[in-house]
Amino acid sequence: MTRVRVRYAETDQMGVVYYANFFVWFELGRTDLLRGAGSSYRDLERQGCSLPVVEARCEYRQPARYDDELDIRTTGALLSPVRVRFDYQVVRASDDVLLAGGHTVHAALDAGGRPRRLPDHVSQLLVRTSGPAAASGETAGPIGPDEGASDRLRTVRRR
Amino acid sequence: MTRVRVRYAETDQMGVVYYANFFVWFELGRTDLLRGAGSSYRDLERQGCSLPVVEARCEYRQPARYDDELDIRTTGALLSPVRVRFDYQVVRASDDVLLAGGHTVHAALDAGGRPRRLPDHVSQLLVRTSGPAAASGETAGPIGPDEGASDRLRTVRRR
Amino acid sequence: MTRVRVRYAETDQMGVVYYANFFVWFELGRTDLLRGAGSSYRDLERQGCSLPVVEARCEYRQPARYDDELDIRTTGALLSPVRVRFDYQVVRASDDVLLAGGHTVHAALDAGGRPRRLPDHVSQLLVRTSGPAAASGETAGPIGPDEGASDRLRTVRRR
Amino acid sequence: MTRVRVRYAETDQMGVVYYANFFVWFELGRTDLLRGAGSSYRDLERQGCSLPVVEARCEYRQPARYDDELDIRTTGALLSPVRVRFDYQVVRASDDVLLAGGHTVHAALDAGGRPRRLPDHVSQLLVRTSGPAAASGETAGPIGPDEGASDRLRTVRRR
Repeated sequence: MTRVRVRYAETDQMGVVYYANFFVWFELGRTDLLRGAGSSYRDLERQGCSLPVVEARCEYRQPARYDDELDIRTTGALLSPVRVRFDYQVVRASDDVLLAGGHTVHAALDAGGRPRRLPDHVSQLLVRTSGPAAASGETAGPIGPDEGASDRLRTVRRR
Repeated sequence: MTRVRVRYAETDQMGVVYYANFFVWFELGRTDLLRGAGSSYRDLERQGCSLPVVEARCEYRQPARYDDELDIRTTGALLSPVRVRFDYQVVRASDDVLLAGGHTVHAALDAGGRPRRLPDHVSQLLVRTSGPAAASGETAGPIGPDEGASDRLRTVRRR
Repeated sequence: MTRVRVRYAETDQMGVVYYANFFVWFELGRTDLLRGAGSSYRDLERQGCSLPVVEARCEYRQPARYDDELDIRTTGALLSPVRVRFDYQVVRASDDVLLAGGHTVHAALDAGGRPRRLPDHVSQLLVRTSGPAAASGETAGPIGPDEGASDRLRTVRRR
Repeated sequence: MTRVRVRYAETDQMGVVYYANFFVWFELGRTDLLRGAGSSYRDLERQGCSLPVVEARCEYRQPARYDDELDIRTTGALLSPVRVRFDYQVVRASDDVLLAGGHTVHAALDAGGRPRRLPDHVSQLLVRTSGPAAASGETAGPIGPDEGASDRLRTVRRR
């Protein structure tokens, strides 16, 4: 899990966090997920494996505000040997309210920009972290009008 | 249409534009769309109508690079009296290649944060700009694995 | 003290942190300094006291890189009843090397945008944190070609 | 000269532009200055010459607001064969009011990170752009009540 505190720089004149900044927090979430399994993204890049984003999506439920402490909860799943998906929930730490949810999809590329398989230790990590849902093929989707969203929401609130 | 030149600040160490910055360009696209119809977003806010983002999505096809000139092509559609959707294509100006596409959905809120109808001149603008596709219910979707994407892509390349 | 880890979003295509982002870290430094004394900047604003920046300066010695852990060391000093200065050092946590130093000067304004005195508990905090140097009128200057810089640098390296 | 329109993303909850973003506009100013002389910074980097910032400073007089059109007026001067300085003024286009001024100092480095002389056509450009106006003492200096400013200004002006 990743804890961030909202920076003044991240707010806009609406008095809340500017929407694009949630994608920066998503980056922190997936970075910490990889790091937690002993495989920092920095090391991955040094080994000639980059993970550019090919798709990104976020749904916004409640605004995030300056100085709020937020938790970014991230899971990962292999979509194919050369493609990975991360799902994120942004939860306000003080009261466990879900502010936003989303996902990103990444291609695995080698140093020359060609598709390559993820290193085994990363693939295994992703299977593990995505757990039963991924195993059954129901990788976590975006929150919102898709099935499963209300379940996930309940899960968050229950904690 | 909106023309931007990629800023150094927008690149990352992969040597391309950081993915969250496309959403900033989307903001410029919808702002110019509104302005072009005589209704700047600044004026909307002053009249007590804000349009916070409730959903955002982008698909990335080709990287954008430092100093590239890009065109943001934006269309808008009313989803309901209190909800609007904008669709975006980011096209490299030098060779008309589509780099990315996406959309945002916005709630229309009054100064107190309650849902409100968009001003008429904005609603009419959106119907006009989204044109026949919107009229027939096929609002432009994100590029990618959905039907219609290849059509839109051809349209872009043909120009 | 403030600990940050460099975000991918903060790098640029030179492979290092984009220079403007150091000023965002400065913001985190002064925010934590105030919070540490029981006076968060968020509360200050709610009490009708804002501290807009009137001057900002940074000198860059060594680049900061993706995933580096950095410490922002911040001191504050009252320049007048309505003006405050913060000085910052950005130090790489792994080897205590000074990467950059700088300062910001802020006006204290009331809710109407007029100059106002800082709340007493903040003024007292600033005198305390800036210590003897501030008391004697030698507020910490930017690192660089001014006297005192090499002293401060030694202080950092000694720790 | 560089014209920008303030982005929503650049504002903060104080309702004005966040202070670090002025340094992004400075980047646009120096980039356009180089480009105007037929030497884009992108080409410079490709030729193995980068210009990392070693010092940056800004003084803020009036806030910049969302949707404002601003002009960034930039001049450049060689401080030594391997060091260059740019001075900036940020002016609101609608009424020509100076919002902020500042400068950056840059080292010229080769692809290996060692100091190198600037290409001749760039050096000549810098001399030229600081040129006659500088001779007459009207180049844009940093605004502000700091001692030393007038000295620095003279230095710039002399070259």
